[in-house]
Amino acid sequence: MAELPFQSLPGFRDFTPRDCAIRNYLFETWRTVARRCGYCEYETPMLEDTGLYLKKSGGELSGQLFRFQDQGGRDVTLRPEVTASLARIAAQHQRDFPKPLKWFEIGQCFRYEKPQKGRGREFYQFNVDILGEAGPAADAELIAMAIETMLALGFSSDDFMVRISDRQAWLGFAKTHGITDEQVPEFLSIIDKLEREKPDILAAKLAAFSLTVDQVRGFIANPPADASPASAAILADLGARGYGDFVKLDLSIIRGLAYYTGVVFEVFDARQSMRAVAGGGRYDTLVATISDGATDLPATGFAMGDYVIRNLIEETAHAAMEMETWLQRNSRSCEVFVVVADESKRDDALRLVTTLRRAGISTDLSLNRAKVAKQFQSAERARARFALVVGQEYPELKLKTLSSRAEESGPADTATDWLTQRLQAPDGPLLA
Amino acid sequence: MAELPFQSLPGFRDFTPRDCAIRNYLFETWRTVARRCGYCEYETPMLEDTGLYLKKSGGELSGQLFRFQDQGGRDVTLRPEVTASLARIAAQHQRDFPKPLKWFEIGQCFRYEKPQKGRGREFYQFNVDILGEAGPAADAELIAMAIETMLALGFSSDDFMVRISDRQAWLGFAKTHGITDEQVPEFLSIIDKLEREKPDILAAKLAAFSLTVDQVRGFIANPPADASPASAAILADLGARGYGDFVKLDLSIIRGLAYYTGVVFEVFDARQSMRAVAGGGRYDTLVATISDGATDLPATGFAMGDYVIRNLIEETAHAAMEMETWLQRNSRSCEVFVVVADESKRDDALRLVTTLRRAGISTDLSLNRAKVAKQFQSAERARARFALVVGQEYPELKLKTLSSRAEESGPADTATDWLTQRLQAPDGPLLA
Repeated sequence: MAELPFQSLPGFRDFTPRDCAIRNYLFETWRTVARRCGYCEYETPMLEDTGLYLKKSGGELSGQLFRFQDQGGRDVTLRPEVTASLARIAAQHQRDFPKPLKWFEIGQCFRYEKPQKGRGREFYQFNVDILGEAGPAADAELIAMAIETMLALGFSSDDFMVRISDRQAWLGFAKTHGITDEQVPEFLSIIDKLEREKPDILAAKLAAFSLTVDQVRGFIANPPADASPASAAILADLGARGYGDFVKLDLSIIRGLAYYTGVVFEVFDARQSMRAVAGGGRYDTLVATISDGATDLPATGFAMGDYVIRNLIEETAHAAMEMETWLQRNSRSCEVFVVVADESKRDDALRLVTTLRRAGISTDLSLNRAKVAKQFQSAERARARFALVVGQEYPELKLKTLSSRAEESGPADTATDWLTQRLQAPDGPLLA
Repeated sequence: MAELPFQSLPGFRDFTPRDCAIRNYLFETWRTVARRCGYCEYETPMLEDTGLYLKKSGGELSGQLFRFQDQGGRDVTLRPEVTASLARIAAQHQRDFPKPLKWFEIGQCFRYEKPQKGRGREFYQFNVDILGEAGPAADAELIAMAIETMLALGFSSDDFMVRISDRQAWLGFAKTHGITDEQVPEFLSIIDKLEREKPDILAAKLAAFSLTVDQVRGFIANPPADASPASAAILADLGARGYGDFVKLDLSIIRGLAYYTGVVFEVFDARQSMRAVAGGGRYDTLVATISDGATDLPATGFAMGDYVIRNLIEETAHAAMEMETWLQRNSRSCEVFVVVADESKRDDALRLVTTLRRAGISTDLSLNRAKVAKQFQSAERARARFALVVGQEYPELKLKTLSSRAEESGPADTATDWLTQRLQAPDGPLLA
């Protein structure tokens, strides 16, 4: 086919039905698990005042923004993330809700990055946050939710691991080693690249802080017992909940520098062959920052994007099979395909379609006067379970199970009843 | 409270949990009806090449675009509608699907308009289209779907009406009265404003075409029998389907000029007190236009926004009640609230929470060591149905029905089983 004049923009996806169904599988699983764990859904605007994002992240994302002036001259940005808006909304509305707020959101975010495997310029994100509870029980509750999400997607403890770290542990380390508050961001960015930096450069960078690589590695490998009381409490809580096999302390996890204040965590595939599947942590000062101190609300949250998790599902046989089962069940375009075998009965067929649909039965028919064989072909292509034939025997209807070719029959005036029964039964003749 | 430093942009909404639940009620109803009628879901990018929209609409929307240059210097626009992208995607992928394509989409669109009741700068839209079928049966199938959507939202034939018109009828009228093809858009825009224009101005405008207001009104009131064979066929089809009470021919309906080619329709509240609730029609040339002729696919579709329909629901008692029932059922933040009455049993309570959630039971608990009365208060606020008390009697659990205060008890090791039963039963003691 010749090049078409319009394509989707680089890094933006078209979701034709199968891709949309996979997206919906993620959405449904995310939503189901969130509700099961007591979270309420909210949504934020796609477009916000650019200042909101700059204030939150201190410019960390500023090179990746879809930022522009709207027709009213406002400096606006397509949301690169949701937490800044959440903080804005929480500051404004928190009095209307009992604490803690356990809220989740599912929606698209936009970052101008180089498109590559596991990353586009738009992506869907599942955001889960607990606001108004400062204790480690909230972090444990949140991490439990992240684990339940992975389990609901068909993963087991062999497939993934949650690595927990603590910004406070590193602040303590920094203090002990005479690193000033101003130097901390630079120091943390060195730790963040510990495994990716060339050894000599790493050593030189640490030497500037009078530190050796061994000292840092030693702290990560054997942190002092009092390095992170919060993560100890969280690990104990998660152990009691039955999640001991899924979590471990790993101080090499740093995450973005701008706004985390305490425990942070990331979910990785067991082989660590991909970017983090999900990540988050405590951000106790963000609501106050965004509201200029009007509202002070401790908070912890995590996000999971749709790119990496989809890749991990597709590369993990049992998770892929679970998704495929869901897709099979949810991607029929109808359950019952009405075949008009006698055109003089078309009006009866049309009325029957209305009746079945009104009763909640997914029903379709050919929109033109096609031959019966062609209509059966359409039924197959729609992946319908049954063909319901309206022919000269009407008001007697023939029902064909398309997988087995088994044939039954039943009266039109009670079709809703016996078809509903039939659809709930496993395949095989019912009215024979 | 002092003015907060950040607000949402004018015309953009924050969806706190109740508003988000109302949005989800619309989404779920739309999705359910679409699947029931044999449509598959797709999604298009939020951002597209601006040229795509300009090509589709001939500039009709160009004053309302959120249009900007991205970091790569591309002229891009936040989608003001979805049909242009659908045409682009259909042109590219239609060979992969049996015809007709019956596709639906639910998502946000953006137009820079003056925010007012029933209109914002963002809105959700439900898009339903049939591509690849030129006959009137496709239009009837589509209009049937629009009606089913209204019925599923709790409206009856007293609440709304579908008014059907036909671009071809007006082209015929224009030809009869010597109006040239070039003049047709201007002529149609006069008809479009027939009821809103001042009588003398209207008369003057029509006089320029050697027409009187009476001639035009007469054509609308008593169109010749052959004015619109397509709408006659569609009305007959809809009558056979049982929708006769919901539809009428009304040639005063014009809709946007740019791309409709045949029958168009709008859904109005019975009192016509609001803007159209939904509207659409046939656009047989759009796919060819967007693909520079590479793909030619007849098409018909409609869209329903979330603003007007929400207003109409809230102003229609029985529809509002139906929505409220759904909201009650779906806005609990949990079903079961676990109350820790003896802190020495907290670990048992945590494990119980994990077990119940894993079994699909929506469960929550207090994240700090609150007094029992306070925990019950939290349970009430979460609108839980049951409080499950873990106290010194553990592994015996107490179950309190929060509405009736009825109390039962049961063993922890089979809690999943009896709670599942209990949740499916109407309220009242089960294990007494």
